[in-house]
Amino acid sequence: MSKPKGFEKPTGFRDYTPLVVNKLRTIERNVLKCMERWGYRQIITPTIEYYDTVGVASSTSDRKLFKLLNNRGTTLVLRSDLTAPIARVVSSLLKDEPLPLRLSYHANVFRSIEEEAGREAEFFQTGVELVGDDSPEADAEVVALAIASLQAAGVSSFKIAMGHMGFLNGLLEEVIPGQTAQQAALKEGLLGRDYVGYRQSIEELNLEPKPKEQLEAILRLRGGKEVCAHAAELSSSAEAAQSIAHLCAVFEVLEAYGVSEHVLIDLTMIGDFSYYTGMTFEGYAAELGSPVCSGGRYDNLLQQFGRSLPATGFALKTNRIIDGVHGITMEENKPVLIQYDKARRVEALAEAARLRSAGQNVVTSLLSDHEITEPAAEVVETSGGSSVRSARDVYDQVITYQAEQGGR
Amino acid sequence: MSKPKGFEKPTGFRDYTPLVVNKLRTIERNVLKCMERWGYRQIITPTIEYYDTVGVASSTSDRKLFKLLNNRGTTLVLRSDLTAPIARVVSSLLKDEPLPLRLSYHANVFRSIEEEAGREAEFFQTGVELVGDDSPEADAEVVALAIASLQAAGVSSFKIAMGHMGFLNGLLEEVIPGQTAQQAALKEGLLGRDYVGYRQSIEELNLEPKPKEQLEAILRLRGGKEVCAHAAELSSSAEAAQSIAHLCAVFEVLEAYGVSEHVLIDLTMIGDFSYYTGMTFEGYAAELGSPVCSGGRYDNLLQQFGRSLPATGFALKTNRIIDGVHGITMEENKPVLIQYDKARRVEALAEAARLRSAGQNVVTSLLSDHEITEPAAEVVETSGGSSVRSARDVYDQVITYQAEQGGR
Repeated sequence: MSKPKGFEKPTGFRDYTPLVVNKLRTIERNVLKCMERWGYRQIITPTIEYYDTVGVASSTSDRKLFKLLNNRGTTLVLRSDLTAPIARVVSSLLKDEPLPLRLSYHANVFRSIEEEAGREAEFFQTGVELVGDDSPEADAEVVALAIASLQAAGVSSFKIAMGHMGFLNGLLEEVIPGQTAQQAALKEGLLGRDYVGYRQSIEELNLEPKPKEQLEAILRLRGGKEVCAHAAELSSSAEAAQSIAHLCAVFEVLEAYGVSEHVLIDLTMIGDFSYYTGMTFEGYAAELGSPVCSGGRYDNLLQQFGRSLPATGFALKTNRIIDGVHGITMEENKPVLIQYDKARRVEALAEAARLRSAGQNVVTSLLSDHEITEPAAEVVETSGGSSVRSARDVYDQVITYQAEQGGR
Repeated sequence: MSKPKGFEKPTGFRDYTPLVVNKLRTIERNVLKCMERWGYRQIITPTIEYYDTVGVASSTSDRKLFKLLNNRGTTLVLRSDLTAPIARVVSSLLKDEPLPLRLSYHANVFRSIEEEAGREAEFFQTGVELVGDDSPEADAEVVALAIASLQAAGVSSFKIAMGHMGFLNGLLEEVIPGQTAQQAALKEGLLGRDYVGYRQSIEELNLEPKPKEQLEAILRLRGGKEVCAHAAELSSSAEAAQSIAHLCAVFEVLEAYGVSEHVLIDLTMIGDFSYYTGMTFEGYAAELGSPVCSGGRYDNLLQQFGRSLPATGFALKTNRIIDGVHGITMEENKPVLIQYDKARRVEALAEAARLRSAGQNVVTSLLSDHEITEPAAEVVETSGGSSVRSARDVYDQVITYQAEQGGR
């Protein structure tokens, strides 16, 4: 590659202009405040972690990790999510805190991309982890908090699709026991929402009518609470039955929260299946095809950091909300311009200080000699601002402090 | 190096626990709000930049840049400050905006360290850039805003030491014209505040008494406004005279702001002299030996991005303020615990929602069967919370919703 030009930045990285920053910061503030109200305390972890610890434990596939070497030749990664770093902190710095731990974060994360169109290499996530509680109550809490967080982020119309890894694992193990590769192919089909591919994988198994129908029926397991009953009938696997009972209990708690109208049960929906161990969910805004949040239970992660604890959580895909959801529209808070000549500087700066204390944004500017010699009509005290070119576009109001004409 | 243990993070990197995050976030919010009141609009730039653009232009020495390679073999850097990235954005995305531009940021920056004790490899800076105005008024504005920002950050007792690169350059060129190496040695002495070394460098020059006295006199150029007059007498260089006139004008504007009590003129104080071109300053809190903010004028940076514009700015060293200044003390906002059994779940969750809307932090918890079978005295409705071990340490109050005894 030739030397980059001065104004270029690496592919997949982004500059946020002031209006976009306003929107991002408003969402960040509102969502973190919401999480705080639910008892979640914010933590910050390093941008860089060891590949052998957090890198390996993260749910991000190896080829998407942003890797670098330190000066001792150890491989480092730019964090790809906050779940693995928080698991590390829970196992070290916070190991003596009482359980369950409720932690929140807003952070930038990194993915090494292969120049796919429009994919971001650095983006923001705002999320929580609830560590040390394996109950349906805990799973429901994070789903209910995801709903409250989406609302706090200005996403007004959305649905949460909620599934369970254990149901699928149990059913597949019942129908095609031990056939790991075939099970993975079916899961990949569901993960990619490639239902044609899923049906094709079923055909290739040459199953008897009953097991074939069991696998096909999964595709119909999407809807309200009744889906739990249908699912329970479909499988005689203990794992599937336990999973459905857990999911049904989660749904009941969500009814108690009064938020079940936002929730669909969708047993075709599976998250990253190397990572999640129980309930998983995704949130879809009306405006967007791709999820604006995702989460679930990951009871096997913390043991990789030497502390075996159940955990559940979620993250908002904050950039998708900024870019794709029209919930929060920011109006630019235009400043007042106070311009002055040297004779009235003290007065002008004191007025600026007064307005700032009162919550007004104020820009101050010394009139140049050129401006001072212009006709008085254009620079006298005014609240319209005709003396500054396109001042109306930039300033809410223009106030001029200038010595009397002839007073110089 | 052997494989890192699961709980380890790379040297120089840090986890921020909730109490520290509270303090950092409070400072961040207060300072950015202050900057907004002065008309500065916040921007966010990528964590990663090209080495050949922003990396080379940054004031950070090459060996301290955190470098990595992308998959095409191009060298990237983790940003070491925000000044160079913002110069890039001003020259590209913001090139059509009216000048002067006032921009603010709060961001993490990176330095590759060689395991020096206590040095951080990633830390936060909160700062501004004022682009397109070369007047003393602009320099005074950023100094006055630095003072307001330190106050917003809870730093109550501090001094700003203000100098000027041009004075030293002019004087040195007058006394030892063209002797670049010797000039650099003298500057290094001042930069490191190594006054013994500085005097030694003077001795080695074998100067006549008058020029020798000129160089030694620099060390006495620290104090109030009167220093400008002393400095003007010391040199007959046009550059030095212009610089002193500019610095004196900046001080007069600071008097008009009513903040000159915080400012000392210190012509021994020089910033990074490959970078700053005019006025430079550092802020010292009473509690700390090392500066809590630094800034100055850098009129040669933007031309490296193809847009020749004067610029001035500063950054708070936010981590030093968090760790070293006792200005802001955070009290932990302890949540209320609402515990409940299944029979009264709806009621308990509704009360939690009500308290959260009213601005209270609330944690909810389902009582386990074990807890429910404990003596009623320990779990009945209470505002003291004896039913949860060390509940007083964690919760502000404990409220229990439980069905009447025998009601199960």
